[in-house]
Amino acid sequence: MIYDCAIIGAGPAGLSAAVNLAQTNRSVIVFTTKEEDSSIYRAPEVNNYLGFFGVSGKELLQSFYDHAAKYNIEIVRKKVINFYKSENIFTINANNEFYEAYSVILAIGTPKKTLLENEAEFVGRGISYCAVCDGMLYKGRVIAVVGESAEAEEEAEYLSELAKKLYYIPLYKKDEFHFKDNVEVVLSRPKGVHGEDFVNAVELEDRILNVDGIFIIRKTMPADQLIYGLEFTEEGYIKVDKNMQTSIEGLFAAGDVVGRPYQVAKAVGEGQIAGLSASTYVKRIKEADKKD
Amino acid sequence: MIYDCAIIGAGPAGLSAAVNLAQTNRSVIVFTTKEEDSSIYRAPEVNNYLGFFGVSGKELLQSFYDHAAKYNIEIVRKKVINFYKSENIFTINANNEFYEAYSVILAIGTPKKTLLENEAEFVGRGISYCAVCDGMLYKGRVIAVVGESAEAEEEAEYLSELAKKLYYIPLYKKDEFHFKDNVEVVLSRPKGVHGEDFVNAVELEDRILNVDGIFIIRKTMPADQLIYGLEFTEEGYIKVDKNMQTSIEGLFAAGDVVGRPYQVAKAVGEGQIAGLSASTYVKRIKEADKKD
Repeated sequence: MIYDCAIIGAGPAGLSAAVNLAQTNRSVIVFTTKEEDSSIYRAPEVNNYLGFFGVSGKELLQSFYDHAAKYNIEIVRKKVINFYKSENIFTINANNEFYEAYSVILAIGTPKKTLLENEAEFVGRGISYCAVCDGMLYKGRVIAVVGESAEAEEEAEYLSELAKKLYYIPLYKKDEFHFKDNVEVVLSRPKGVHGEDFVNAVELEDRILNVDGIFIIRKTMPADQLIYGLEFTEEGYIKVDKNMQTSIEGLFAAGDVVGRPYQVAKAVGEGQIAGLSASTYVKRIKEADKKD
Repeated sequence: MIYDCAIIGAGPAGLSAAVNLAQTNRSVIVFTTKEEDSSIYRAPEVNNYLGFFGVSGKELLQSFYDHAAKYNIEIVRKKVINFYKSENIFTINANNEFYEAYSVILAIGTPKKTLLENEAEFVGRGISYCAVCDGMLYKGRVIAVVGESAEAEEEAEYLSELAKKLYYIPLYKKDEFHFKDNVEVVLSRPKGVHGEDFVNAVELEDRILNVDGIFIIRKTMPADQLIYGLEFTEEGYIKVDKNMQTSIEGLFAAGDVVGRPYQVAKAVGEGQIAGLSASTYVKRIKEADKKD
């Protein structure tokens, strides 16, 4: 099935877009890693989203999920690795499973940069963001896994069954790690990538480790790695017009990823605009397809 | 007292701005004619404002008023006739009572044009929007009153006590009118203004009435008559930047008046941005004032 719209992110912007698309009778799929990943989830109290007063971020988010449930909106707990557009159809890679949609809305929260110096130039040449997608390429080899949060440990475990040797580099604090014997936990900040055609080492603050590949496991992919050709503002936000359309036709963005203030009402409002714009866009291209 | 912000309009955009200003500890005054004037009030059901499902527009608006009440926000039921800025202070004329504020937010709903051809060029020269403001100027004279809704009848009654003769021209349907003997109800569409230095007649579809002045009584003033120097887009919306600031520093706008879609979430989001921008602006000019 080709969805009318695939929404990446299930925070206030993503769910608002979803509800507005559903109300205009469009089919929607929403991708999210975990609802706890939305920054609103940790807010002790939210008082400035009109109509709600004295609620916790968690409660507010629950009301948003409840609203989406009224429309039976499909929410898939998978991380989107990347996606591309070909002949009016977007193909989305969510943890190595593939979905198709006529339009996409990026609602992935505060913009994240790539982590390592020259990381971007080695993507697909030794830098990977997805264990299940690329793990097999490193069977019997030496790899480093950079984990943004404890959830990355699961992917590291999977990779340790394939790799000869695995350096696990956590970006978070934790006292004890439980890995197989071929895993070495390295507590040093990663800084850059060495290599020529292909990655051959990762540079840390205090040493250089020779590796055949580097997996960077984050909660959300940096927007500039999700799709080729996306334009950004000078401040690093996704560039959108007043209909929330990005530099790529059929691709919209809303919420923190397009700019400040990082606030619920602003995100919900932009999500609505993105959802309605995507709805109008999909109607137009479907009608054009019929004429062909 | 000088308010930190005066908000004109108490629909979703205006109340969202108010709540966000109150939360950042700014003093706020909100002007509205009646809550029934918000277009949302008449919506039988609203399903696409995230967090609320299956509510009537009236119920949703009530939740918004309840939220504003938590912050004890002052809501004044008076129509703003116009306002001006002088040395960082805005002075607001609300039915001939005057208020001062460091910033203003326009949240007056879908943009309205002036009604009559060449109306704008006779403002202050025979065209008036406010009975109590200008009534005395027409004592013993002949005037026309154009009423957008039944609420205008009260102002016409007041004016009929001053005028020698009053033509009442309703823009709405009603079977019976009860006025003093010097009032003639004229059921013909007004089209234009005649005059040289000053108004001398109003042109209707089927006749021309010689008058000394024309009162146009609307629920909301057209934005281009509220303040001098406001810039508009080609489509007739108030021009704003991404912080919702208009062409006049310290004056912000949000909601339907700045563009489509005419939707609650979009208005609430923009109201939040306008409120937070006004809050930042007021902080800055108050600090600058202290230094002087």
